[in-house]
Amino acid sequence: MNYDQIFDQAIDRLHSEGRYRVFIDILRNKGAYPNARCFHGHNGPKPITVWCSNDYLAMGQHPKVIGAMEEALHDVGAGSGGTRNIGGNTHYHVELERELAELHGKETALLFTSGYVSNDATLSTMAKLLPGCVIFSDELNHASMIAGIRNSGCPKRVFRHNDLAHLEELLAAEDPDAPKLIAFESVYSMDGDVAPIHAICDLAEQYNALTYIDEVHAVGMYGEHGGGISERDEAADRIDIIEGTLGKAFGVMGGYIAADQKIVDCIRSYAPGFIFTTSLSPALVAGVLAAVKHLKNSSEERDAQQRNAALLKGKFSDAGLPVMLSETHIVPLMVGDPVRAKKISDILLAEYGAYVQPINFPTVPRGTERLRFTPGPAHTEEMMDELTNALVEIWDRLELELRKAA
Amino acid sequence: MNYDQIFDQAIDRLHSEGRYRVFIDILRNKGAYPNARCFHGHNGPKPITVWCSNDYLAMGQHPKVIGAMEEALHDVGAGSGGTRNIGGNTHYHVELERELAELHGKETALLFTSGYVSNDATLSTMAKLLPGCVIFSDELNHASMIAGIRNSGCPKRVFRHNDLAHLEELLAAEDPDAPKLIAFESVYSMDGDVAPIHAICDLAEQYNALTYIDEVHAVGMYGEHGGGISERDEAADRIDIIEGTLGKAFGVMGGYIAADQKIVDCIRSYAPGFIFTTSLSPALVAGVLAAVKHLKNSSEERDAQQRNAALLKGKFSDAGLPVMLSETHIVPLMVGDPVRAKKISDILLAEYGAYVQPINFPTVPRGTERLRFTPGPAHTEEMMDELTNALVEIWDRLELELRKAA
Repeated sequence: MNYDQIFDQAIDRLHSEGRYRVFIDILRNKGAYPNARCFHGHNGPKPITVWCSNDYLAMGQHPKVIGAMEEALHDVGAGSGGTRNIGGNTHYHVELERELAELHGKETALLFTSGYVSNDATLSTMAKLLPGCVIFSDELNHASMIAGIRNSGCPKRVFRHNDLAHLEELLAAEDPDAPKLIAFESVYSMDGDVAPIHAICDLAEQYNALTYIDEVHAVGMYGEHGGGISERDEAADRIDIIEGTLGKAFGVMGGYIAADQKIVDCIRSYAPGFIFTTSLSPALVAGVLAAVKHLKNSSEERDAQQRNAALLKGKFSDAGLPVMLSETHIVPLMVGDPVRAKKISDILLAEYGAYVQPINFPTVPRGTERLRFTPGPAHTEEMMDELTNALVEIWDRLELELRKAA
Repeated sequence: MNYDQIFDQAIDRLHSEGRYRVFIDILRNKGAYPNARCFHGHNGPKPITVWCSNDYLAMGQHPKVIGAMEEALHDVGAGSGGTRNIGGNTHYHVELERELAELHGKETALLFTSGYVSNDATLSTMAKLLPGCVIFSDELNHASMIAGIRNSGCPKRVFRHNDLAHLEELLAAEDPDAPKLIAFESVYSMDGDVAPIHAICDLAEQYNALTYIDEVHAVGMYGEHGGGISERDEAADRIDIIEGTLGKAFGVMGGYIAADQKIVDCIRSYAPGFIFTTSLSPALVAGVLAAVKHLKNSSEERDAQQRNAALLKGKFSDAGLPVMLSETHIVPLMVGDPVRAKKISDILLAEYGAYVQPINFPTVPRGTERLRFTPGPAHTEEMMDELTNALVEIWDRLELELRKAA
């Protein structure tokens, strides 16, 4: 048994497939986002424009958020010092859970250290509470949902992406008396398309299944108060468990679920991934509280994001770049090859100071490697023109085909 | 299928076993820790003394930590905005990983959002990299290690706590050519005892097994530079993977592993729990960086903690309270019944303003429910006397037996 050799082989596989990941070392410039400094491949920092952040609305830079975090730091300190049960339950946590519950029109909410953990812990525990539960999972569900479902040990039925007929076929094939859970996302982050929530809920009612929606790429950004697609579509009351993140549109870090009191109480009491971990730093929680409250009453950031996403999609499309159709704020550009996607990304960063990561397997299926742009409220039209021109030049340089402009 | 009824039953079970958890709502007073304010069961906050925090050295209150976090907040903002691969890799992350690697004398280190996630993600992925790997796990290993091992799907052999003969018996029973991993902790947090690291490494060498140590209750607190028990015992170079937390002695939040470059590169590249999650907020990372650097060069906090833990154990013992033997900073008081443990904790909080949570199943085995005190550098002898007197009074009131004083 030669351990070194096995680890070497695992790394070699990534290199040979062109998907060995290099993390780009950056620091954002607070107050001037999407501007940042890049420490990668130079001596000293070089100014760049960030095009791939999930801080979608730049709330991580908002004075209210920074101010609230600073205040909490000075009031109570850095970390929480313990699990929620043992010393780590602060007034901030209690207040944020109340705020998130209200945002989604649910009885209560529960914080986790990340969106990943909220999906993994909740799904794996739901199933433990419902022995024999069959889980119906959209084929494009996020890795954290897949992990939670796998870790639950439950039988899993994967339905084709957003395919209601296939979902119904799978539901109908199970024992009517077996517990069932349908797990899906609202906005699928790599394609930018949206789930038919009401139609899925219709099926859930018909087959007596619980529903679990991942709204991480929608909370803060859709609905009049930022309650996500389920708010926009007036479907929140039909969903049993809404899961969200505090690390994207809310600009900080962490995850949560919102649901009925008894479901949350069960997860709170039975999920190891919730019980046995130090709770979120009170400073983070204070920052999120400010972000959620702000976005509840302000649509300015949401509107600007949608405007800029539409603008960039239009510019890409006009230039003949292979922008993927998307009904949301996500602007994916299909490349279809990991080596080429990395090459384009490298040139953009080195020559144009535009930072966008190549998205490769396992984040997206092989052969659908892409660049994924997330313009926010603070990206200017000038930045978009520069980016579009740079991409056209690179497409030309690499002898890639441009679609004929409309 | 009546879902409500099933959830109700799950909650009822906890009530009937006396282990339904109520989170005590508190805010610590920065600069005056262990003093805090309690919002539980009163109108408005009431002053309390915290006895159960894992902010062992009060670094979560240290001016250097707070200052560094504030600076980072103002330099780069609240959240990282993405995964480590997509926009969330900041210069702070890179620097902290370098610092942690140096602390443990390893080639490199890798940050996770929590200690729980570092254990779960690393153990479940190690096994994926080593098909057929047999994992040898101490029976008192933390829930997060148990989750990682379970999620790996590998065959697991549980050895009796710190029992070398049993571990060897299990190692010898396996195919010599099968990959093997021994997973254990340095300080077991609920009993406060310590693993025989060198002896375990001897067995690992003899049977060609990898070693994985969880040092979350030791990093920052043991060893000349806070490198944990593996530094104190000069055993770090014999361990393949050292796992630690940023949320206890370092006072903030997060987790990490330190190991050879190739092992870390494999985990970084293959672990879903690392890849698919927003990275730690740069502000948290900056705070930890300050804490690690400080504790590398200062033993004052470590010494004061050890002194105060010994003092409190002595006072409990002199008063005849059932304090458990412990060679570390943990001071557990055995109660042996969940209802009684909660009762004592409730009286301490309500009547004496002393906050210590009852520890019940599943954190400890049933029948070994206890109170667990973690005196830090800032707990005064006067606080300890008050606490000891309060416990003696409660012991008397509840007609519990005191041991004859030595």
